[in-house]
Amino acid sequence: MLSDTTILVALGGNALAPSAALGTVTEQFAQTRAAMDLIMPFIRQGYRLAITHGNGPQVGDELLRVELAADRVPPLPLGLCVAATQGTMGYMIEQSLQNALLDEDIHRDVVSLITQVLVDEHDPALERPDKFIGERYSRDKARQFADRYGWRIAEQEAGVWRRVVPSPRPVRINNARSIKHLVGMGSIVIASGGGGIPAYVMANGHFEGVDAVIDKDLAAAILGADIGAQEMYILTDVPEVYLDFRTDHQRPLRRMTVAEAQAHLDAGQFPTGSMGPKMEAAIQFIRQGGRKVVLTNTESIAKALVGESGTSVYD
Amino acid sequence: MLSDTTILVALGGNALAPSAALGTVTEQFAQTRAAMDLIMPFIRQGYRLAITHGNGPQVGDELLRVELAADRVPPLPLGLCVAATQGTMGYMIEQSLQNALLDEDIHRDVVSLITQVLVDEHDPALERPDKFIGERYSRDKARQFADRYGWRIAEQEAGVWRRVVPSPRPVRINNARSIKHLVGMGSIVIASGGGGIPAYVMANGHFEGVDAVIDKDLAAAILGADIGAQEMYILTDVPEVYLDFRTDHQRPLRRMTVAEAQAHLDAGQFPTGSMGPKMEAAIQFIRQGGRKVVLTNTESIAKALVGESGTSVYD
Repeated sequence: MLSDTTILVALGGNALAPSAALGTVTEQFAQTRAAMDLIMPFIRQGYRLAITHGNGPQVGDELLRVELAADRVPPLPLGLCVAATQGTMGYMIEQSLQNALLDEDIHRDVVSLITQVLVDEHDPALERPDKFIGERYSRDKARQFADRYGWRIAEQEAGVWRRVVPSPRPVRINNARSIKHLVGMGSIVIASGGGGIPAYVMANGHFEGVDAVIDKDLAAAILGADIGAQEMYILTDVPEVYLDFRTDHQRPLRRMTVAEAQAHLDAGQFPTGSMGPKMEAAIQFIRQGGRKVVLTNTESIAKALVGESGTSVYD
Repeated sequence: MLSDTTILVALGGNALAPSAALGTVTEQFAQTRAAMDLIMPFIRQGYRLAITHGNGPQVGDELLRVELAADRVPPLPLGLCVAATQGTMGYMIEQSLQNALLDEDIHRDVVSLITQVLVDEHDPALERPDKFIGERYSRDKARQFADRYGWRIAEQEAGVWRRVVPSPRPVRINNARSIKHLVGMGSIVIASGGGGIPAYVMANGHFEGVDAVIDKDLAAAILGADIGAQEMYILTDVPEVYLDFRTDHQRPLRRMTVAEAQAHLDAGQFPTGSMGPKMEAAIQFIRQGGRKVVLTNTESIAKALVGESGTSVYD
């Protein structure tokens, strides 16, 4: 029996890779299969379900393939690399989850969609490329690539140069109507992988890709709202969110209102590189009509689903 | 107004690339946009629509990227390369078609799905790898790859060695239920790109990928049947199918029954490398309940849609 509640789960790209180094495809498949233990509790409860996922290590690998082959094979721009990882990771998640469902004699389709995510062409972030992607280079080598491919580059640490791209805010998930329809009929939908393929709407109404990356948790918040999900689970690397994190008076937060979450965020409690965007995503999801967001880690997600772990954000 | 008729259009991979050499992504996008002129007449008539496409040149490029980067980045097996092209090509077709729809103020979702296609694990073709893929090598170099990656290799012409993979028959399209649902609601669905990601069902019921390629027209026949399409249009390089093709008494066939098509096929009228599998696909689609198949080329498809060109196969 399907529940009336729709849940969106946002997996980190590292939940699907064996370690920071991505490992072989066999290892990635093994890790992806293991990650399905995080998803199955939601399905056993009969929830309507969508899944989104990061792609950091995976798109890094694809960028490197493109670059190493650039003299022989026309390079793929960043948006097409994201599209490629939506294909490869979508397939791995889809097949792994399908097999886990078969083991429990559950008959629901698992469907992976290629997803464009719309950003605002006037987003000021588009003028401030500050997200490091791809390989590390010497200054000279980085400049060569910059000249050749029109990259923007920046020094990440002394002597280490990398490509930088903007990270605009997601505004709308393309095909949300179709995704909602599939989720409504009980299909489990994998969408908006890697934060989605960034695109904007030109003056003539056409969609056009843009070389950028979108934060996958912020994209998840929009996806959740656009498909009418009531709850969102965001996987992170801690079982609960803490105040005064990594100080000697750090303390877990089990439950917050949106107003409290916003106040803690404004007070600088959540670092911009990690918990900050996740908390922003949580706040946005609730403000757009969501009922609950739970932030937790892979070890605690099953307990979080029954309210025994994790940090919940409510209206 | 949506028509009650569902049509599946099968595009060749070369309809989406500027030439045999694939060209830059900008050129591929331009070609893909141009190819939407082939699709729009179906949409103007209000047909429910699914699209499938080949990926020959595109998967060749991805295989080469994987190979050239193999010392630095874990190689993707063939199935994941197909998945990657479903992502990249799905995105390009989806965005191009969406923009074409916007120009005519038509509001239908265009959705790309990652698609596994099931083959029979006992298909004798799996023991006979005979489909050449990827780069051309000297015998020594090909043997090195064979040893390193477990490739099967064969000599395609004197001194030219390539990887060979099997081409088993498609049996079932995964997620056909979800695809049918989307097509039914009016979304235009791109699915089973490149013939699909080949997988088989193991003794324990699990899906498992297999290093093979599936003929995209045969996969189209199964996709069409599985989603209940009434008509299928197969793009090829001739406006009509001919008897005694490329002889001085070649003559076009405008209309055939399945029995006639089968008789011509059995008589060797359609070469195995080109029209043969397309005619097999046509026969299979009709035998599984389809009403009509039209074989034609890009120049003639709009005329074929109104019965003024192309070769039609009926029950």
